[in-house]
Amino acid sequence: MAKPHSVIAIPDVQASADTRRLAINKVGIKDIRHPVRIRGRSGDEQTTIASFGMYVNLAHHVKGTHMSRFVDILNQYDRGIDPESFRHMLVQMAQRLEASSGYIEMSFPYFINKTAPVSGVQSLLDYQASFIGEIHGDDAALRLKVVVPVTSLCPCSKEISDYGAHNQRSHVSFDVRVNHDASIWIEDLVELAERQASSELYGILKRPDEKFVTERAYRNPKFVEDTVRDIAACLNDDDRIAAYAVEVENFESIHNHSAYAMIEVDKASEAN
Amino acid sequence: MAKPHSVIAIPDVQASADTRRLAINKVGIKDIRHPVRIRGRSGDEQTTIASFGMYVNLAHHVKGTHMSRFVDILNQYDRGIDPESFRHMLVQMAQRLEASSGYIEMSFPYFINKTAPVSGVQSLLDYQASFIGEIHGDDAALRLKVVVPVTSLCPCSKEISDYGAHNQRSHVSFDVRVNHDASIWIEDLVELAERQASSELYGILKRPDEKFVTERAYRNPKFVEDTVRDIAACLNDDDRIAAYAVEVENFESIHNHSAYAMIEVDKASEAN
Amino acid sequence: MAKPHSVIAIPDVQASADTRRLAINKVGIKDIRHPVRIRGRSGDEQTTIASFGMYVNLAHHVKGTHMSRFVDILNQYDRGIDPESFRHMLVQMAQRLEASSGYIEMSFPYFINKTAPVSGVQSLLDYQASFIGEIHGDDAALRLKVVVPVTSLCPCSKEISDYGAHNQRSHVSFDVRVNHDASIWIEDLVELAERQASSELYGILKRPDEKFVTERAYRNPKFVEDTVRDIAACLNDDDRIAAYAVEVENFESIHNHSAYAMIEVDKASEAN
Amino acid sequence: MAKPHSVIAIPDVQASADTRRLAINKVGIKDIRHPVRIRGRSGDEQTTIASFGMYVNLAHHVKGTHMSRFVDILNQYDRGIDPESFRHMLVQMAQRLEASSGYIEMSFPYFINKTAPVSGVQSLLDYQASFIGEIHGDDAALRLKVVVPVTSLCPCSKEISDYGAHNQRSHVSFDVRVNHDASIWIEDLVELAERQASSELYGILKRPDEKFVTERAYRNPKFVEDTVRDIAACLNDDDRIAAYAVEVENFESIHNHSAYAMIEVDKASEAN
Repeated sequence: MAKPHSVIAIPDVQASADTRRLAINKVGIKDIRHPVRIRGRSGDEQTTIASFGMYVNLAHHVKGTHMSRFVDILNQYDRGIDPESFRHMLVQMAQRLEASSGYIEMSFPYFINKTAPVSGVQSLLDYQASFIGEIHGDDAALRLKVVVPVTSLCPCSKEISDYGAHNQRSHVSFDVRVNHDASIWIEDLVELAERQASSELYGILKRPDEKFVTERAYRNPKFVEDTVRDIAACLNDDDRIAAYAVEVENFESIHNHSAYAMIEVDKASEAN
Repeated sequence: MAKPHSVIAIPDVQASADTRRLAINKVGIKDIRHPVRIRGRSGDEQTTIASFGMYVNLAHHVKGTHMSRFVDILNQYDRGIDPESFRHMLVQMAQRLEASSGYIEMSFPYFINKTAPVSGVQSLLDYQASFIGEIHGDDAALRLKVVVPVTSLCPCSKEISDYGAHNQRSHVSFDVRVNHDASIWIEDLVELAERQASSELYGILKRPDEKFVTERAYRNPKFVEDTVRDIAACLNDDDRIAAYAVEVENFESIHNHSAYAMIEVDKASEAN
Repeated sequence: MAKPHSVIAIPDVQASADTRRLAINKVGIKDIRHPVRIRGRSGDEQTTIASFGMYVNLAHHVKGTHMSRFVDILNQYDRGIDPESFRHMLVQMAQRLEASSGYIEMSFPYFINKTAPVSGVQSLLDYQASFIGEIHGDDAALRLKVVVPVTSLCPCSKEISDYGAHNQRSHVSFDVRVNHDASIWIEDLVELAERQASSELYGILKRPDEKFVTERAYRNPKFVEDTVRDIAACLNDDDRIAAYAVEVENFESIHNHSAYAMIEVDKASEAN
Repeated sequence: MAKPHSVIAIPDVQASADTRRLAINKVGIKDIRHPVRIRGRSGDEQTTIASFGMYVNLAHHVKGTHMSRFVDILNQYDRGIDPESFRHMLVQMAQRLEASSGYIEMSFPYFINKTAPVSGVQSLLDYQASFIGEIHGDDAALRLKVVVPVTSLCPCSKEISDYGAHNQRSHVSFDVRVNHDASIWIEDLVELAERQASSELYGILKRPDEKFVTERAYRNPKFVEDTVRDIAACLNDDDRIAAYAVEVENFESIHNHSAYAMIEVDKASEAN
């Protein structure tokens, strides 16, 4: 198949002027998958697969951005990613794209090795996490999102029933904005949610473990409102956190819909 | 905007001959949504939204099928659909497409009005259902798929724990081939699954109802293996059913994965 | 199966006092499906299936909301829904739940009967739409979301290639806040997106129609940046709209990722 | 929190006898995620994240399987996986679960480093792949599934239009049963699909590359029927393959639904 003899004359349509006088908030690439190495709280790295969205703003007088440069940056990224290197990637993207603002969201499964409460058997559990970075001029802000699957047990069902209580898998979803000089790790949010839920989940439970988690959940009933408040109270006390939204969704075992609660706090505006 | 002056000379590429000598098992359209009216067991109709796949076979000497005819058929279908009219749609499609085989799958949410067990309060519950029809020559076979969400409560957790027992939402998924002269209704499969599960789900439960379903599930613990066997035993006894696969999936409240079991029976081959 | 003799003594756990002093922004039910009748711009109604999220705020001193009341409201709603009746549902929910704020999101497929550009053949096309209502005290605000699938054709590919140009299906996603005394219809946003895209989609296209849309797209190439700007310009000029975000996502036919652009405007803050 | 003093007396409910006389085809765990290392055709390994289903059959007289053993096996698997080690995992699972049949499906994103056709720029492209193994007694059979995203360009649209031709992203989906002594690699099926499609996809294309792929697709128009036949012809000629199903789905850029075709061949039954 013949290749073009010369590529010099190929016009650069994206670089031409635009006269509509409309700036674009975000332009870039979406839903591109890439392997990444994530550095965890202990310093260890794990390899996982992330789905990226990478965007910059576009001034009103520029017709188009250069889409292939986003992928260039991604394909050069084979170093381990932690909050610091993620911030660097954000700065680099804005520079390469000659933009004053930039935005990266990367979402990936993250594994934590958990120890069963009685037998001590170890197994991996997976959590969906996202790093979200936003830069405006020199000001970069980082957010961490984590979805933590837990057990919830209904206080009303326990109270009114002669035996048993309905329970189910639930999702605690964090969206946390981190203060500039602080670090929050995925492990921090996972532990917080697992401590406040009726019980936590494991990959492997031997029979004595199953007895343990069943009884822990039964002794520890929580409405969706209780879980979200108990977690919010902890986030309010954590000085590393500038703002947050925390959601709890119970996939009710007695209904075909979810019970849901959400608390959202921006500490800067609360302080006034 | 100028329209073409003449459309007479537009060549019909799809109707030309094909020389690769390869027949195609299924060709057609996929993932097209259309409103439909489904006739239920009581004779009442409900309007819902179905996603369709419509396919025919293609002989080795024909280059292509006529995709727009599938949509034509769909757009003419404003009558209520039940097993009989669905069979008619299948025959009509094969004829219009000049094919010896045809295949239609339509998948839709179906609502049943349920009555809470103590208070008698009524509310709708949604079930995902599919009609699947296959025709080869004059021989049309119909399958019915239904996903029934239920509660499962773990016998092991109940047995080994001093109090409580983990439970969760589960899906019972039927794929049932119906005998030629028989009718199976969505309602039949829903009732079967709800009777055999630890408990059934409702849209609205008042407190006395919640007490009732909590205690029913606790008195009625079932492993995924128990539920699938108890349902299979009923399907084996039902003469309207020629073959089936039934799956049970428990969205474990103590793990981040599902427990799963499946039984598959073709009564014709079992009879030998 | 024995029913409880008396339900009078069943305690109302949710109504007890809460001492954590944490208000909840949103609490309610999520992902519940219900059939609805939507009134369109022409006054005609269509029956479709909506997925609802219904939430209220919860004052810091109340332990829990009453989840079954949300489903009550839903099950009473068999009237046609349009912006006015949706606002009424919002007010009613806040009152029944004794809340100062309420939030309803309902998302549903919506069908428009389209006429092919040359042959005049009619067929339905489906669009995913959402009504979102928020009430704080007496102040109710409505948002309309619509996803419009269209064709995009790449100007760069057309310009640099001796023949052809890559094109693909794209999604234009609107999230529009409507002024208090104004009405925006799903049809309005669909027409706007279909006019500004390289071309629009149809359920059925006969050959002369296919020629027409192919040539229309080729004469009308647009980057993701062009489409989002041309649509934003129209939304800026529309006095019914208080604020909007519009996204365009091209499912690139030459990549395995999307090109994406977004413009977000709040006219109140722009006016300063 | 107190731990149980003794676990010796905890009854093993799953190991008790079952009297319903119903064997279970598949019982096990579903949708569990785990990091894996996949060995590719070149011998290099890549780390990715797989979602597993692991099942065994259950004889009619056994009440339940031992779910935690499946996860045990998974958590011990930190070696690289290729067809040979996957077969070993299958044998090991059936032994540990004391079953005569076993079934493992693992699905994961797989990355291939591609070279742009003119500029030579390299970038990763992701493909969704699955290994499926089934063992009955000593007889193990392996299947490989791969979804390859490609470009399709419509021959009818090209033929009837004065300029341009609609094209779109398409998925070629393989499900291939491999002969006992043969090996098929993900790379083999990817290359086959990319060669037979109108064009192939890349992560990064510089402008001369974009010109190249645009023109290649325009010179190489294919109906969904053409692509599926051209690929089937290659699979028929490949002696490593015992049976296959190949599907092509075009996400039509002029419709909101897909065009679809499928060819399915079992060479053993064709040989008669």
